Amino acid sequence: MAGFLEKLERACRTNQSLLCVGLDPVPERMPVPGIYEFNRQIIDATHDLVCAYKPNLAFYEAQGLEGLRALEKTLAAIPSHIPVIGDAKRGDIGPTAVAYAKAMYEVWGFDAATVNPYLGRDAVEPFLAYRDRGVFLVCRTSNPGAREFQDLISSPPFGGDPRPLYEWVALKAMTWNEAGNVGLVAGATYPDELTALRELCPDMPFLIPGLGAQGGDLERSVRNGADGRGLGAVLNVSRQVLYASADPGKFAAAARAVAQDIRGQMVQVLREMEAPWLSS
Amino acid sequence: MAGFLEKLERACRTNQSLLCVGLDPVPERMPVPGIYEFNRQIIDATHDLVCAYKPNLAFYEAQGLEGLRALEKTLAAIPSHIPVIGDAKRGDIGPTAVAYAKAMYEVWGFDAATVNPYLGRDAVEPFLAYRDRGVFLVCRTSNPGAREFQDLISSPPFGGDPRPLYEWVALKAMTWNEAGNVGLVAGATYPDELTALRELCPDMPFLIPGLGAQGGDLERSVRNGADGRGLGAVLNVSRQVLYASADPGKFAAAARAVAQDIRGQMVQVLREMEAPWLSS
Repeated sequence: MAGFLEKLERACRTNQSLLCVGLDPVPERMPVPGIYEFNRQIIDATHDLVCAYKPNLAFYEAQGLEGLRALEKTLAAIPSHIPVIGDAKRGDIGPTAVAYAKAMYEVWGFDAATVNPYLGRDAVEPFLAYRDRGVFLVCRTSNPGAREFQDLISSPPFGGDPRPLYEWVALKAMTWNEAGNVGLVAGATYPDELTALRELCPDMPFLIPGLGAQGGDLERSVRNGADGRGLGAVLNVSRQVLYASADPGKFAAAARAVAQDIRGQMVQVLREMEAPWLSS
Repeated sequence: MAGFLEKLERACRTNQSLLCVGLDPVPERMPVPGIYEFNRQIIDATHDLVCAYKPNLAFYEAQGLEGLRALEKTLAAIPSHIPVIGDAKRGDIGPTAVAYAKAMYEVWGFDAATVNPYLGRDAVEPFLAYRDRGVFLVCRTSNPGAREFQDLISSPPFGGDPRPLYEWVALKAMTWNEAGNVGLVAGATYPDELTALRELCPDMPFLIPGLGAQGGDLERSVRNGADGRGLGAVLNVSRQVLYASADPGKFAAAARAVAQDIRGQMVQVLREMEAPWLSS
């Protein structure tokens, strides 16, 4: 994963963390007004505890141009050594995919982006072409509806072993990974599927949402999601950190305390796994 | 499809057209500078020939906040009786899907939106909840990579008839269509798949991209894509209309001429099909 993967692993080592904080501002839940002000305080309080930040563009788009201006300012407030994953799950074809990749990597300047694989390789290629950026393909999501299509037992029309659709996505992702910049999105709420994906793709970085508010189990996510070195797993938590307290004067400290606690639990599991990159 | 479908069919009848013009501005190809100025001239020249406009958000996002401001102005320049389909192919879960639906229908105010089905029903539900707006589920796309996942022969884990994945999407779409506001995206470049989908979903509106620059056949798209009344097919053309001429003084007239010609061909086919809604 070239540039992005290097940056990610450096941040993991520096901050001794696999925790990614999802910057998903919801005005009704924010203890202070102003998306930028809220994000800035969260970033100030957590930037030495995370390996990445992950703004989901939906929350900014829902606030119109003002929300997108707040995203612009937020990105400028993230220390440059922390990678930023733009979670937008884009997916379109031809010149449209080229425009989306440009928006994510050049306009917003994200280090990595999430991409929906349903439209096939040519829809993903414009993202892959940014060889120093990461491309996390949405593979097995953390929601109940994930079962509906992603688990269909599927085989190519010309024959082949039947497998769940999400495993086909993972297998294709490996063949698309010429620049080493491809990863998978695999939800923490389905630990068995996470294990299956880690077996199929031993070296690929996984973006793992679904911890915290969604109920995914932290220990199993680290054990099933990390690669052989105890790296390659970006474990995202959003609401549990962002909305740790509704008190305008204390929410940032509360967010920090929660992030610290989650990181501590991760390190604990990684120690049991004897991950060689942890400081003693 | 409640409010949206009514509006769409009224525009089809008023303008005697199934043509949708995709407003996909690419600065390098535009004969005049300024996305808004370009779009405005295209709209002025074609608004009495179309049943809908379809801006694809990628092209605006690729130009940053300025591009999105141009989208805002563009939407205000479209006559209010012409429905506007926001082509963004969003797909995410829980509160994120709620935020995307809000962005598409409330912030931008689109009459309909395209949505990626890969994440399952709960990812689509927040869109469906806007009962007076349209939800076009990406089903069988017009690109070569469409075959990769959409054509996998799939069956539910607990058993069931194997079918291509895109047919499962169509079947699910029918069960999700409680408010009558669901449609499908089905590419013009695969006429057999279009026919299969029309057989599965006889009454559902189809958004059909892939004509023009992508090479889809117009006559077959009308015949295979329209419903029993000769309606329910929104046939999108983008580049062929937008970039009909590179001459700054003539491109709008050229766009009009191309749109008129395409509409004429559509009407010709519809007459042969004896579509009852055509004026004599």
